[in-house]
Amino acid sequence: MRYRITVEYFGKNYSGWQRQKNALSVQEVLENKLSEFFNQKIIVIGSGRTDCGVHAYGQVAHFDAETKIPADKLVYPLNTVLPSDIKIKECRIADPDFHAQYSAKRKTYIYKIFVSRMPSPLRDSLYAWIIPPIDLEKMKEAAPLLLGRHDFKAFSSTGCEKKSTVREIYRLDINQSGQEIIMEVEGNGFLYNMVRIIAGTLVYIGKGKLDKDVICRMLETGNRKLGGKTFPACGLYLKEVVYPGD
Amino acid sequence: MRYRITVEYFGKNYSGWQRQKNALSVQEVLENKLSEFFNQKIIVIGSGRTDCGVHAYGQVAHFDAETKIPADKLVYPLNTVLPSDIKIKECRIADPDFHAQYSAKRKTYIYKIFVSRMPSPLRDSLYAWIIPPIDLEKMKEAAPLLLGRHDFKAFSSTGCEKKSTVREIYRLDINQSGQEIIMEVEGNGFLYNMVRIIAGTLVYIGKGKLDKDVICRMLETGNRKLGGKTFPACGLYLKEVVYPGD
Repeated sequence: MRYRITVEYFGKNYSGWQRQKNALSVQEVLENKLSEFFNQKIIVIGSGRTDCGVHAYGQVAHFDAETKIPADKLVYPLNTVLPSDIKIKECRIADPDFHAQYSAKRKTYIYKIFVSRMPSPLRDSLYAWIIPPIDLEKMKEAAPLLLGRHDFKAFSSTGCEKKSTVREIYRLDINQSGQEIIMEVEGNGFLYNMVRIIAGTLVYIGKGKLDKDVICRMLETGNRKLGGKTFPACGLYLKEVVYPGD
Repeated sequence: MRYRITVEYFGKNYSGWQRQKNALSVQEVLENKLSEFFNQKIIVIGSGRTDCGVHAYGQVAHFDAETKIPADKLVYPLNTVLPSDIKIKECRIADPDFHAQYSAKRKTYIYKIFVSRMPSPLRDSLYAWIIPPIDLEKMKEAAPLLLGRHDFKAFSSTGCEKKSTVREIYRLDINQSGQEIIMEVEGNGFLYNMVRIIAGTLVYIGKGKLDKDVICRMLETGNRKLGGKTFPACGLYLKEVVYPGD
């Protein structure tokens, strides 16, 4: 039977989603704990990688297992064996051809920024920190330039091995509440570091270090060097992954 | 010269505010780092204790030091020597008779509750977790019964050594946003575990385990056993301390 799970994690203590040598990943913890629980080798496939320190409210993954426990009754006992920084929010039976990565239609990421002269202990590892002032209106004016289908090559880090760098962004909202700026971006897929480079470039625009036209030039030329810096992993959250039929 | 500092801390890794043997406290870290910085023995006096695991957005403390650096210029260099979970938000010169504990007029605490069938990794150590359902209206109806000047003996833990258990609560707001319930309470002072017992008792009322009349009976009888359980430290935040002239 194939199961689809939605996973929340606090990424600080992990090398990212993807299993790797010499560093603990979220995938490895899930595979180890689920294999113990079901007493069979379990392979967990996620919707995509998240980097070291990146968080998730709703990473989606699938695995195959044989068990007589109903899917919705699995959540509680599985969570009792998982650590406090990784928990399953939902578990349901999926079609046998459901694939968490290849079936994904849309993803939403959140990027959280704390604006203050001093860093905030209560937001440490949860927000990117910038020093005021920042012009939110400039960021909001620049954001729509990223909407739609574009070649986002300039918004990806070298090391990105995707064949095509064309993606479509459906929505990019920027809101401020007190000292916190929350950016939410939804698209059909994202390149390596894409949301963190978008965040960094929009902040540079908000701080007047770059003009909003830089976004058009980046999309036209594919030149990563024109943009703002790649913002830290700790501000990034995979919020939601949507599949056909959801 | 006497200085007044406002300190934010994430309490998870500390035994609380107060210096003690065999466990690391926020006060000890501040005293050690400030003593090194000023190259003289610095005693840091806080507005009051906070328990192990309790957080602060705005703990206030004072200390005496001799330095030629202006008070507002001290924040940045002091923060460079402090760990990421303790930071000074403000530093100013205080009157020589200012005392962070004895001069305090009012304190505000926040208590954060996450309502969900499953615990949340991203709110771990930052929220108390309860399982739904909870009737927020019942909590809101009960809250005003705590307002005013009362003997709050029933809302304190044994081990509380205060001579008088009479306190005055000026304000107690309860708001829900999505799965989060935020309680904010302002008073002239609080007994040991008082806010955590208020939170636990209001949640028991919201869950229908207790009737709101229990609050009147607790205030009348001083009987701690009538109330809900003492809720966990991780949901509690010292938000603000107010002094004469602020």
